[in-house]
Amino acid sequence: MQYNLKVMRMKVGFVLAASAVALLAPRQAGAQLFPFSKQDLLDYTAQNPFDRFPDGRPKVPDSMLDRAREMSSEEVWAVLPGKKFENQYADGFQVLHPGKTMVGRAFTVQFMPLRPDVDSVVQAKVRANGLPRLKNQTALDMLQPGDVLVVDLFGKKVNGTIVGDNLFYYTMKATHAGGLVVDGSIRDLDGISGMDMPAYFRHADPTPIGQVMLTGINVPVRIGEVTVMPGDLVLGDREGVYFIPPQAVKDVLDRADEIHVHDEWTRKKFDEGRYKSSEIYPSPADPALKQEYQEYLKKRLEEIQAGRKE
Amino acid sequence: MQYNLKVMRMKVGFVLAASAVALLAPRQAGAQLFPFSKQDLLDYTAQNPFDRFPDGRPKVPDSMLDRAREMSSEEVWAVLPGKKFENQYADGFQVLHPGKTMVGRAFTVQFMPLRPDVDSVVQAKVRANGLPRLKNQTALDMLQPGDVLVVDLFGKKVNGTIVGDNLFYYTMKATHAGGLVVDGSIRDLDGISGMDMPAYFRHADPTPIGQVMLTGINVPVRIGEVTVMPGDLVLGDREGVYFIPPQAVKDVLDRADEIHVHDEWTRKKFDEGRYKSSEIYPSPADPALKQEYQEYLKKRLEEIQAGRKE
Amino acid sequence: MQYNLKVMRMKVGFVLAASAVALLAPRQAGAQLFPFSKQDLLDYTAQNPFDRFPDGRPKVPDSMLDRAREMSSEEVWAVLPGKKFENQYADGFQVLHPGKTMVGRAFTVQFMPLRPDVDSVVQAKVRANGLPRLKNQTALDMLQPGDVLVVDLFGKKVNGTIVGDNLFYYTMKATHAGGLVVDGSIRDLDGISGMDMPAYFRHADPTPIGQVMLTGINVPVRIGEVTVMPGDLVLGDREGVYFIPPQAVKDVLDRADEIHVHDEWTRKKFDEGRYKSSEIYPSPADPALKQEYQEYLKKRLEEIQAGRKE
Amino acid sequence: MQYNLKVMRMKVGFVLAASAVALLAPRQAGAQLFPFSKQDLLDYTAQNPFDRFPDGRPKVPDSMLDRAREMSSEEVWAVLPGKKFENQYADGFQVLHPGKTMVGRAFTVQFMPLRPDVDSVVQAKVRANGLPRLKNQTALDMLQPGDVLVVDLFGKKVNGTIVGDNLFYYTMKATHAGGLVVDGSIRDLDGISGMDMPAYFRHADPTPIGQVMLTGINVPVRIGEVTVMPGDLVLGDREGVYFIPPQAVKDVLDRADEIHVHDEWTRKKFDEGRYKSSEIYPSPADPALKQEYQEYLKKRLEEIQAGRKE
Amino acid sequence: MQYNLKVMRMKVGFVLAASAVALLAPRQAGAQLFPFSKQDLLDYTAQNPFDRFPDGRPKVPDSMLDRAREMSSEEVWAVLPGKKFENQYADGFQVLHPGKTMVGRAFTVQFMPLRPDVDSVVQAKVRANGLPRLKNQTALDMLQPGDVLVVDLFGKKVNGTIVGDNLFYYTMKATHAGGLVVDGSIRDLDGISGMDMPAYFRHADPTPIGQVMLTGINVPVRIGEVTVMPGDLVLGDREGVYFIPPQAVKDVLDRADEIHVHDEWTRKKFDEGRYKSSEIYPSPADPALKQEYQEYLKKRLEEIQAGRKE
Amino acid sequence: MQYNLKVMRMKVGFVLAASAVALLAPRQAGAQLFPFSKQDLLDYTAQNPFDRFPDGRPKVPDSMLDRAREMSSEEVWAVLPGKKFENQYADGFQVLHPGKTMVGRAFTVQFMPLRPDVDSVVQAKVRANGLPRLKNQTALDMLQPGDVLVVDLFGKKVNGTIVGDNLFYYTMKATHAGGLVVDGSIRDLDGISGMDMPAYFRHADPTPIGQVMLTGINVPVRIGEVTVMPGDLVLGDREGVYFIPPQAVKDVLDRADEIHVHDEWTRKKFDEGRYKSSEIYPSPADPALKQEYQEYLKKRLEEIQAGRKE
Repeated sequence: MQYNLKVMRMKVGFVLAASAVALLAPRQAGAQLFPFSKQDLLDYTAQNPFDRFPDGRPKVPDSMLDRAREMSSEEVWAVLPGKKFENQYADGFQVLHPGKTMVGRAFTVQFMPLRPDVDSVVQAKVRANGLPRLKNQTALDMLQPGDVLVVDLFGKKVNGTIVGDNLFYYTMKATHAGGLVVDGSIRDLDGISGMDMPAYFRHADPTPIGQVMLTGINVPVRIGEVTVMPGDLVLGDREGVYFIPPQAVKDVLDRADEIHVHDEWTRKKFDEGRYKSSEIYPSPADPALKQEYQEYLKKRLEEIQAGRKE
Repeated sequence: MQYNLKVMRMKVGFVLAASAVALLAPRQAGAQLFPFSKQDLLDYTAQNPFDRFPDGRPKVPDSMLDRAREMSSEEVWAVLPGKKFENQYADGFQVLHPGKTMVGRAFTVQFMPLRPDVDSVVQAKVRANGLPRLKNQTALDMLQPGDVLVVDLFGKKVNGTIVGDNLFYYTMKATHAGGLVVDGSIRDLDGISGMDMPAYFRHADPTPIGQVMLTGINVPVRIGEVTVMPGDLVLGDREGVYFIPPQAVKDVLDRADEIHVHDEWTRKKFDEGRYKSSEIYPSPADPALKQEYQEYLKKRLEEIQAGRKE
Repeated sequence: MQYNLKVMRMKVGFVLAASAVALLAPRQAGAQLFPFSKQDLLDYTAQNPFDRFPDGRPKVPDSMLDRAREMSSEEVWAVLPGKKFENQYADGFQVLHPGKTMVGRAFTVQFMPLRPDVDSVVQAKVRANGLPRLKNQTALDMLQPGDVLVVDLFGKKVNGTIVGDNLFYYTMKATHAGGLVVDGSIRDLDGISGMDMPAYFRHADPTPIGQVMLTGINVPVRIGEVTVMPGDLVLGDREGVYFIPPQAVKDVLDRADEIHVHDEWTRKKFDEGRYKSSEIYPSPADPALKQEYQEYLKKRLEEIQAGRKE
Repeated sequence: MQYNLKVMRMKVGFVLAASAVALLAPRQAGAQLFPFSKQDLLDYTAQNPFDRFPDGRPKVPDSMLDRAREMSSEEVWAVLPGKKFENQYADGFQVLHPGKTMVGRAFTVQFMPLRPDVDSVVQAKVRANGLPRLKNQTALDMLQPGDVLVVDLFGKKVNGTIVGDNLFYYTMKATHAGGLVVDGSIRDLDGISGMDMPAYFRHADPTPIGQVMLTGINVPVRIGEVTVMPGDLVLGDREGVYFIPPQAVKDVLDRADEIHVHDEWTRKKFDEGRYKSSEIYPSPADPALKQEYQEYLKKRLEEIQAGRKE
Repeated sequence: MQYNLKVMRMKVGFVLAASAVALLAPRQAGAQLFPFSKQDLLDYTAQNPFDRFPDGRPKVPDSMLDRAREMSSEEVWAVLPGKKFENQYADGFQVLHPGKTMVGRAFTVQFMPLRPDVDSVVQAKVRANGLPRLKNQTALDMLQPGDVLVVDLFGKKVNGTIVGDNLFYYTMKATHAGGLVVDGSIRDLDGISGMDMPAYFRHADPTPIGQVMLTGINVPVRIGEVTVMPGDLVLGDREGVYFIPPQAVKDVLDRADEIHVHDEWTRKKFDEGRYKSSEIYPSPADPALKQEYQEYLKKRLEEIQAGRKE
Repeated sequence: MQYNLKVMRMKVGFVLAASAVALLAPRQAGAQLFPFSKQDLLDYTAQNPFDRFPDGRPKVPDSMLDRAREMSSEEVWAVLPGKKFENQYADGFQVLHPGKTMVGRAFTVQFMPLRPDVDSVVQAKVRANGLPRLKNQTALDMLQPGDVLVVDLFGKKVNGTIVGDNLFYYTMKATHAGGLVVDGSIRDLDGISGMDMPAYFRHADPTPIGQVMLTGINVPVRIGEVTVMPGDLVLGDREGVYFIPPQAVKDVLDRADEIHVHDEWTRKKFDEGRYKSSEIYPSPADPALKQEYQEYLKKRLEEIQAGRKE
């Protein structure tokens, strides 16, 4: 029932000093309102086919993150409902950089409205473990390259600001520009706008975070109508954000390859100007065209896979 | 780390059969997504000055529930912010019986959007403990007289219906008309309207509950901008619902007595028709009136307390 | 392609004078923007198992209207989705008399935003047929006992008022208090509140109807997310309004009988105070109880049917 | 440039003590942020045909207030737009007593968001005039029988509460149950619900008034999309609130008499069951019926006027 | 009563194969829920001063489309209300390419919520005519160069997606980048964002179209508070969309020329820095300036017309 | 009690002709509904430490406007609440040029819903003073370089348009691109988008201004939940707009300098990649780092000040 928080060295020159490692050393159970242990995480993500972080969080491989950067929401939709995942999409966010797809592994944080009686117990437990006060930076300090910070701040605007420009900058460095999804708000929108990390938020507000207590790090959280699990693959585009369970990632990516080829071929046909839309889309009725498409699909998928092996 | 669910016999002829008691026998840890043990509950409600239920939930005494029936939201407001409790009030509900004050002890239930991978683990754990499928009735079956059922269904309308008229009827019987607060919806509004239990809900909808999973019973839940703890005193009036931590209940009730006397005296004075509002309210400037009020207050508080002892 | 508008004599002393009958005599095709003929109506409601009005509109029998007065939305929900009717429920209305169930046959009217070029053609066609100007009263004058007036005014508030108190009074008389559903507004809410006919409306506003043109009488109309067909059985309760295709009415009514008996038995059991909710609801697990219920159901259904024959 | 605040004795036993009169004695210019003098008020309400209060506010006669109690919004609408008053109606309020028409003379109060630099000047000016701190009760203390308190609190919910139950009670006594319209909120809804004065408000909230400053008493204020002048006749029904300039009151009342007779006659005709709605309403086409109506109208108007003289 | 769907050859290499032409051959009456025939269309657009498509739809000339590209909403406003067209503007859309004016001829499509009983009749009629299933692509396949696709999907978000990126691409090719207005949603916003056709939509969503039925092609449709007729000139700018009846197009364009010259002259004057705004705008009071403006207007209009003739 | 409207010569070639000066010559009291005199303005802005315009409006120095261009909302937040200014921020606007900070002195204008009886008095008073009709251009003509036009149009969309492109252009010229904040709407968004002046507005609409009356120029106005005083420093960024009282400007600017240096240093440290966020931010715990920061701060502030003196 411990979080092993030995922080991985980051590739791009983000080396933790000894003191920082110590700060994030094994956390005792109960240091957060919802005691969700490493074993709990292992149990509830048992279908994860990939490696895990030391704390048990599923680790979708970097190569799959790279492939995911070509995807859009519709391609995830093409797979998940068929697997009975009907509640994995959240939208209604302000999108910081509409043209920039967000891809990463979910690092989840949960806040609840402040109750001094509850928070004082939380903080006492933290102190008893020799750790500093639990607050938003406690979570930020644990971020890893490739993470997307996913924060439940229950849509709070005033005082619901998970980061301002300085901590956004830190998050960008620590996650290697992974991204941020907050069901709440951010500060310093002007400063943040110049930073090259995707972010999805409900509001911007000049106030700092307040009247809330941190109740869980890497526990299941709710964002809109989605239950997000730590380690989900997070995909954000202009429309919204999909949270993809690790065990579904490969199927989603493979299906996306097919859809990309299908789009290529479809538009090529439309470019020829000889067909009505229904003759070609969603699939050609004419047997010769069907045959042509199947061959094209096969060839292109082979090329794509070959290109990936290089 | 067990819920002792030995169900209390209810006063009004609601006696549990043996099979029912068995059904609710000691639950193993992990039978819900958020493992919040009896010890957790004791820790986080350590300031509770009252008895507790066998499962650790604070039990505000019946006599205080009775006194609370005379209160309104404003009287709670007069005390809680001064104790740094600034986030204990939720509103924006539809109120079933506007003229009927709701008073009871919070029995909390949390749902999250359905994820089949997570829910299958939850249900497997439940089965491993020899218990039936975890669902909304699992919680209802544990309700006690004097409880208010407090449900986080994250505002869901369609398929976010915690009860229809049959289960509303059961809840009324089991809680002795304690009440219901759901950040979600209910079914059968027509049928429910004729039943004499207070209820606060976001919507009514003809669909049954669905696409959700039960993730916690008597865990901390969020209703609007309030963190509700199991055992909080729930007070609902025409405006909204206050969740009062047990340790603050006595101060709130005592302050309410004073406010009631102050209201009595103030209106008596206004009835005399000799004063402008600011001569009397919020407190009289005239020394003689001030004296008169202080004497009236003292006398009436004594009468009220005497009346309670009878 | 004609509306046969021979108006039925009403039971409660609402006898049309000769001039009125003339006014409503056979209307030529094209007298409304959407030319939806009697044959169209017959074609699109071909599954109707009941008689029809002279104009082709399905006529759910009076006896079924009477049975429907005992129903609520949930009982309709129990049948329609199973028949692939997933879009027959509309809500979000202001309900004039929350305790009074609305039951009747849909008489549909469609308005669209005024375009003088289109409306002048409509009115010219009407004039060419020797009829007076097409307006909201043209439709009202055609109402029959047992009708519910269903009006698409596209949610318009200001100038979207289908009736004020005088025409509401007329509608009540003409339909024998059938009812009104308007996706738009009404006037004279104070006056209307004292009249004993159910009504569902989006807004109340002091302005009269304006800036709209009548584009169809007894054509398919859209109310919220429902396509309403003339002759649908309209059922309104505290929650919202269901539009039931005639061919589904009998199944819905029969299912409602069972649900009523099930509710009776369930609450009787809950009243005994010996069972947890899950032991009884939705159906008893115990074989003896199951048997008991089946016998109760059989007996009560027979009683109900017998009662209807008397 | 003074408010003469000599308060009239109230009929129902509401006699002001000497001290109260002193409190409200002539106010110096500048004691409020918007210096709107008695002369300003006289200038901007120059068309008022009636008496005035000592402070210059138009005083629609009591007899007209009595007649207005029979009116509804639609009857005001029938007159005002024709006089180019197109912005005199506000709605979207919660209505305390939907069945009780509100009638009275507008007593206006304006608040703005608190700025300590501005408010300190206001209060210094007040002090310099020997008056107590300017606050909501300053205005309440000036209320007269027959007044409706009209308050611009810019829709503020939290801390936008003009009165709680004690000051509502005072207002009811002082205005002889005239009424309250607040573009803001009220407290103690439970307590207020039992008091027999009409009220229109945006929200109810348990917080007291705060973070605002009183900037004007009996100055022009904005309620929704209406500019309300002190002394306007305020009429509230189930739909919303009309603010009628004094110079239009007589025409509105006379027109309402006609509409009432027209409604009587129309429904009488509908009750006969011999006519379609368009044969009778809005006016009969048949010359004999037209004649019948004209005679009925004449006779009834005479009866009504005779009844008033008694 | 037929649609002649002989599709025009498109300039930019969009040549229809024989099979496509066959597909779109004469449609029988009744193949859609609202039987709106060619004669109906001719009747209701009788004031159209221009040529028509073979199916009867008015065809505003290409030269006027070109002139319209310089216009903005305000310039349409300057003319239409004066012609009693007060309901021709819709806004509240998401605008795909805010800097790109949309101009084209309205090609209208109407959907309604799915009713299987009605849709099965529609599809049976279609089959009886030897045509394939009626669906969104049926309409897309009929699009012509210069068309703007105008779709009533009653604001539906989930499953209200008229096109994704492939069909958006097809629409762009087929209309020569005419445009899209949908009171509903689109899919694949990321993919669509890179395509150079204007589009106005309510939402973006990853789901495909569903739970709707196509009820009319080139029938009158409602978009917001506008009745759109097939063949209307559609003009979209950053603010919203105007639907201009063909008979008003010339006046709107001519008035726009004047406004453009007026803007030129006004700003030139403001650039001189010698005038207050009211000395110049809306029209100069000084006779010399008025004269100067009139001469400038005359000269520039001549230049503009000369430029067009080249 | 006069506005001295002698207009300053503008730097960029905006020289007023004699006639214009005459037009704006001393205005008599009462020429607007709210008579707020020069003395009133002096009284209510008594804490202003800077020069004033001839009409009494505080004039924050140009040098401070220049410094303010580097600020953002958060930096204002860091100072104002500490000075008890808790209501100086408004948001929810559409922002014309999100990347362009708006800085200027508040020039306030207030409109109210039109009442012909009141407006006719206003206009009669204006005429009696030999001035032209009071309208939106009356205010525009008084604008000075460095002003931000702040307009209360009570959120009105249709007919709530303070300027179209021509008057926006004029405002840009007259204020030297100071800016516009309107709690209402603007016209000609397409034309305005190309003009290089910041603007904050609620809506864009094609209609011109109407059904309103100008009730005050350079009086206190309310924008959202802010009381804006003439002469406030207006600061707009991507999030919203702050209105800073003149007496707080220097402290805000000085604090912003420190925050800028703090940001510089913090990110420099984060760039080193050796620290967790909490080791550096909000302030370093390590004494050596603390020392390092203090020295950096001192040095950089000196550099900044030196740079300003050049």
